[in-house]
Amino acid sequence: MVDYIGMERIQELVMRRGPAAFIEGLAAEIEADYRRWPEFDKSPRHAIHSPVGVIELMPASDGRLYAFKYVNGHPKNTAEGLLTVTAFGVLADVDTGYPLLLSELTVTTALRTAATSALAARLMARRDSRVMALIGNGAQSEFQAIAFHSLLGIRELRLFDVDTHATAKLERNLTSMRLPDLEIVRCPSTLDAVRGADIVTTVTADKCNATILTPEMIAPGMHLNAIGGDCPGKTELHADILRRPDARVVVEYEPQSRIEGEIQQLDPSFPVIELSEVVAGRASGRASDSEVTIFDSVGFALEDFSALRYLHQLLRAEGGKQPQIDLVPELHDPKDLFSVLARRQPSSAGAEPRRATASVRRA
Amino acid sequence: MVDYIGMERIQELVMRRGPAAFIEGLAAEIEADYRRWPEFDKSPRHAIHSPVGVIELMPASDGRLYAFKYVNGHPKNTAEGLLTVTAFGVLADVDTGYPLLLSELTVTTALRTAATSALAARLMARRDSRVMALIGNGAQSEFQAIAFHSLLGIRELRLFDVDTHATAKLERNLTSMRLPDLEIVRCPSTLDAVRGADIVTTVTADKCNATILTPEMIAPGMHLNAIGGDCPGKTELHADILRRPDARVVVEYEPQSRIEGEIQQLDPSFPVIELSEVVAGRASGRASDSEVTIFDSVGFALEDFSALRYLHQLLRAEGGKQPQIDLVPELHDPKDLFSVLARRQPSSAGAEPRRATASVRRA
Repeated sequence: MVDYIGMERIQELVMRRGPAAFIEGLAAEIEADYRRWPEFDKSPRHAIHSPVGVIELMPASDGRLYAFKYVNGHPKNTAEGLLTVTAFGVLADVDTGYPLLLSELTVTTALRTAATSALAARLMARRDSRVMALIGNGAQSEFQAIAFHSLLGIRELRLFDVDTHATAKLERNLTSMRLPDLEIVRCPSTLDAVRGADIVTTVTADKCNATILTPEMIAPGMHLNAIGGDCPGKTELHADILRRPDARVVVEYEPQSRIEGEIQQLDPSFPVIELSEVVAGRASGRASDSEVTIFDSVGFALEDFSALRYLHQLLRAEGGKQPQIDLVPELHDPKDLFSVLARRQPSSAGAEPRRATASVRRA
Repeated sequence: MVDYIGMERIQELVMRRGPAAFIEGLAAEIEADYRRWPEFDKSPRHAIHSPVGVIELMPASDGRLYAFKYVNGHPKNTAEGLLTVTAFGVLADVDTGYPLLLSELTVTTALRTAATSALAARLMARRDSRVMALIGNGAQSEFQAIAFHSLLGIRELRLFDVDTHATAKLERNLTSMRLPDLEIVRCPSTLDAVRGADIVTTVTADKCNATILTPEMIAPGMHLNAIGGDCPGKTELHADILRRPDARVVVEYEPQSRIEGEIQQLDPSFPVIELSEVVAGRASGRASDSEVTIFDSVGFALEDFSALRYLHQLLRAEGGKQPQIDLVPELHDPKDLFSVLARRQPSSAGAEPRRATASVRRA
């Protein structure tokens, strides 16, 4: 039997702790895994593109556990009442190859992305950052807001989305969360939202080279948390922002980010720093208060590995009877896979005729 | 909700039809998909190797449906009472990226491998083939036996395995199946089993370059169905068998088979024919009764795509209430993913403190 976390269970696991505490715990796991970066078997995700979206598989392993995520990206889905991104994943035991846990990762991806954003921002944003602009108020925006409020100490959140209903929804959800000491400001444009912000988070979803942020919006000392651009032909920042002489660009996994990140707009020799270097203290996330720091985030398989590991820990800590599914056979004799079928006799309809029977002899 | 086929359900779906009829139906689906080979997005599988095994992801898509399989290969597992191979997979809708079906594929992999073997043998073996040697009597052997009895008309099955318990189990299972007009012969060695056989199926599981078949065992006109060698460093045939001047080698997907198949032992320029060419009638599976034909099979993602498509058809044809799992959210507003968490109030323990509440203003 394989442990199972569906929508009902993820709601319980997150809300028992509260989203902020959940994200904080998850960020610690992601940080711990980035610290042991060389132990991981890493590869860019495997993507199959169609005219309307992409379906990706993201595997990672540390030699003891193996995880993969299935995730799609279909910006046109929202017009049909469907999510842009859905995801699920599996944690498996490398020693036996058996799956241990199947989990929903749609909600968890939003949580782990927020945790990773906050982890990077703690290493890259100015310590006195209190104001964040949040551009794109869709499915992931609440998670970003909660993470930056709780882990970074953001106290003013400046919202903008081309869809005013999305902004109203975000405001409503955040208000109902009763986050302490948080001022929420609805802004009429990206330019208005960004003005005076210490941190700018862009989490938009068009499948195109959008220009959500332009060079004149950016002030010295800002930290940009750019998470919406995450596949070929899908970017959010004007390339000149990345090219600023005072800019410092951090990515998760360079070979993947060259294909999918904001830096796909630049020459492959453009210098970037990997997040693991910053986490390990081998590179600085920010050299001065006036630098423009940019976390060019696309989402890396290690973060889903951490999330699945974290979920499995939480599930196991709950004790008692947890939901499981019969995804793999349990056999008395592992060479007798056929016994799975033989457990019951075939019904007469459509089953094998019983004419002559097989005879057996020794050669 | 996502349709779900676990161990209980696969047993019902297969036994309602009988394994032979199930394999025959599946072979027809695999053949239909190989016929439209150019429509598929193909890639070698993504493998992560450890000292004791391999975990692989196998994606494929025809632009309308997407499928992937998770599969492990751990030959040492049987000594611990576990299966060498377990697998599961997902069928998804390319237009939305949403998963449609999660299914066990451990049993199904054995069924689809047998279906593919029989499909290839119908195109490659001599038409008067009646005797098959079955070398390796483990988890997949019953499925091969049933497929070749039913789809090829094999009437004598000559068994050998270094593990005599495995052979006894296979014999017991086949006898209980009451396959009509089938003679089962237990042989003391591979050489004995192969002598006089029209078809030789090798389905062994060591993770090494084994030499199950050696050149002197092979007679003109034989068809070799070599399915046990399926990853780097895991082969079953002596390379000189492949090099026979009268040999014809068919593979599933050349780029993957060069890495994983028997032909990994040969120069990359060694000529092979892809199965799709034979299925489409553009290449011959056998040019004369004296040729030695070799299906160097490693298992390709298209076959799992076909299997998941077939399972989903069968499931849908059953009608009524089928098992489903809550793997993806269902939302009134697709931009309100956070509502999944907000459905219930957090319990007081560990939830957010309710001190000051967020304030909202317009910029």
